[in-house]
Amino acid sequence: MKTFSLLFTALWLSSVVGAVCAESKVVLVIHGGAASDRAKLTPEMDKRYRAGLEEAVKAGYEVFKKGGSGLDMVETSIRRMEDNPDFNAGKGAVFTSAGRNELDASIMEGRNLKAGAVAGVTVVKNPISAARAVMEKSKHVLLAGAGANAFAKGVGLQIVDPSYFRTKERWAEHKELLEEEKKKPGTTGAGLSVPSTGEWSTVGAVALDGSGNLAAGTSTGGMAGKRWGRVGDSPIIGAGTYADNEACGISATGHGEFFIRYAVAHDIVALMKYKGLTVQAAADEVVNKKLKTAGGSGGVIALDRQGRVAAAYNSEGLFRAHITESGQVTVKLFQE
Amino acid sequence: MKTFSLLFTALWLSSVVGAVCAESKVVLVIHGGAASDRAKLTPEMDKRYRAGLEEAVKAGYEVFKKGGSGLDMVETSIRRMEDNPDFNAGKGAVFTSAGRNELDASIMEGRNLKAGAVAGVTVVKNPISAARAVMEKSKHVLLAGAGANAFAKGVGLQIVDPSYFRTKERWAEHKELLEEEKKKPGTTGAGLSVPSTGEWSTVGAVALDGSGNLAAGTSTGGMAGKRWGRVGDSPIIGAGTYADNEACGISATGHGEFFIRYAVAHDIVALMKYKGLTVQAAADEVVNKKLKTAGGSGGVIALDRQGRVAAAYNSEGLFRAHITESGQVTVKLFQE
Repeated sequence: MKTFSLLFTALWLSSVVGAVCAESKVVLVIHGGAASDRAKLTPEMDKRYRAGLEEAVKAGYEVFKKGGSGLDMVETSIRRMEDNPDFNAGKGAVFTSAGRNELDASIMEGRNLKAGAVAGVTVVKNPISAARAVMEKSKHVLLAGAGANAFAKGVGLQIVDPSYFRTKERWAEHKELLEEEKKKPGTTGAGLSVPSTGEWSTVGAVALDGSGNLAAGTSTGGMAGKRWGRVGDSPIIGAGTYADNEACGISATGHGEFFIRYAVAHDIVALMKYKGLTVQAAADEVVNKKLKTAGGSGGVIALDRQGRVAAAYNSEGLFRAHITESGQVTVKLFQE
Repeated sequence: MKTFSLLFTALWLSSVVGAVCAESKVVLVIHGGAASDRAKLTPEMDKRYRAGLEEAVKAGYEVFKKGGSGLDMVETSIRRMEDNPDFNAGKGAVFTSAGRNELDASIMEGRNLKAGAVAGVTVVKNPISAARAVMEKSKHVLLAGAGANAFAKGVGLQIVDPSYFRTKERWAEHKELLEEEKKKPGTTGAGLSVPSTGEWSTVGAVALDGSGNLAAGTSTGGMAGKRWGRVGDSPIIGAGTYADNEACGISATGHGEFFIRYAVAHDIVALMKYKGLTVQAAADEVVNKKLKTAGGSGGVIALDRQGRVAAAYNSEGLFRAHITESGQVTVKLFQE
């Protein structure tokens, strides 16, 4: 009798644990950039960012429910954030030192390591869709500048006037940055210094679709005041974005130069594959040890094939949201 | 007596082995690209490539002998090959589908993971020097297109008319490729197909200087017939170039899209650091297993901190040369 009751308890417990695990399996995680200055965030902005993240993660989840691929989920969520002027991607992107918007994006598929990216596009409404088109409709992985614009136009993506990306708020910030620069010129004359209050509100997403395939993508306006022609980590496969079904999918945000030098996204994958680290341990190792020691500010979101989500950042915050298989949404901006 | 003689024999043997090891310590390895079609190489061309490689590796060695840094060694050797019209870098670069020369280069320092790169420059005589200037004189890692040209001019590098890069031989090849394309258009209309006879004579170098620091660099005109704006692996830190004193320095050459997707240079470093592979085993794992399975043609040269040189390629040949601490030169084009 005692044995039976123990057996039933064990069975009941395992079914509860099983349900909890299924419940907590994350199918989509997104980010809206690393935040360096919490004090700057008004309650109204806080609310807007949370709403923007929730809306974007739910849009990607709708695709999941309809049986869409990880690529479709990633593209859908990122397009929402590109269209949302609060994020530094698509409409509302920051300006280069020359007062232009130059947009970067990349996307990658974990099952076959296929990837596409664009750098410095100026007329493509949704750079993430251009990145996907490069992957699917060209022989190349990365197209830059005017060539990338022409390609996007050629494959029928929505083209806009460069003024589409400009918002009043970002333009005011840009003017402020230029004034600051005049008072304290860069040491080289070759570019603006990195703004100390830099808001790196790059966006990104990592999805695990119903077939168990991972995909990841990232989109950004880059670093405020970046030198004309500067390319950050977002369009660099291995730096800002990576997806490998044997490990995880990753999207990064932060001081891009460090993310390139440390091959951040690929390093996380390598630590999982070659050292057997969990996705969270691997992300922490790179972001909170290597990058932190080097002075590279920012963070990453990651998702492995079991639906285990990870976030690691050495900045004050990382705007992020994830959604489980059953549709439960979690939104966080800082440690909370 | 017997014990003494054994001891002396052992001492003599160890000194001989020591001398051999010191003798074989490589301080500089360079490549002049992966070759896909040995039959195309006339005896005269064979001789010219060998002479070009020897001249370039010796130029870098002169810098070593004067106590120059690994960066100086890499830059010097690569400049020689950029100036040599036989290689697809600097003068003699291949053309884009639009009939232009767009040059890519990158450089990296193993002791601090600092890096610089340029993509799509059109007026800088020596792109490798522009990559180094980005690393040393800007806050950025990668500058592209017109912005990179302007930066290079701003820091005083030698600027040339775009026609400087054009050679009669490459132009004839370009016209031939366009004719071929007319007969068998690309499937997408978005770019030329990859030429099956592609000669990937990208150049690169990895050095180990007197202070024990590694440096690596790569320079290229890219893929013949590449779409305007296409960026390959050569300017991508982690793909075409990487250097980490904890593992090795690497320069790659081949079908760049695969090298980006597989983060080839960083993957070799990761296999050494996280799985304890030797430099040759790590290079083989990536080039002769992963890339070969995926259909990514090309190869790498690598050098670790002990002066152990590695070459791995799945193409017919890899034009390469190395030089030891004592000045002994080895030049190889194929398996020989």
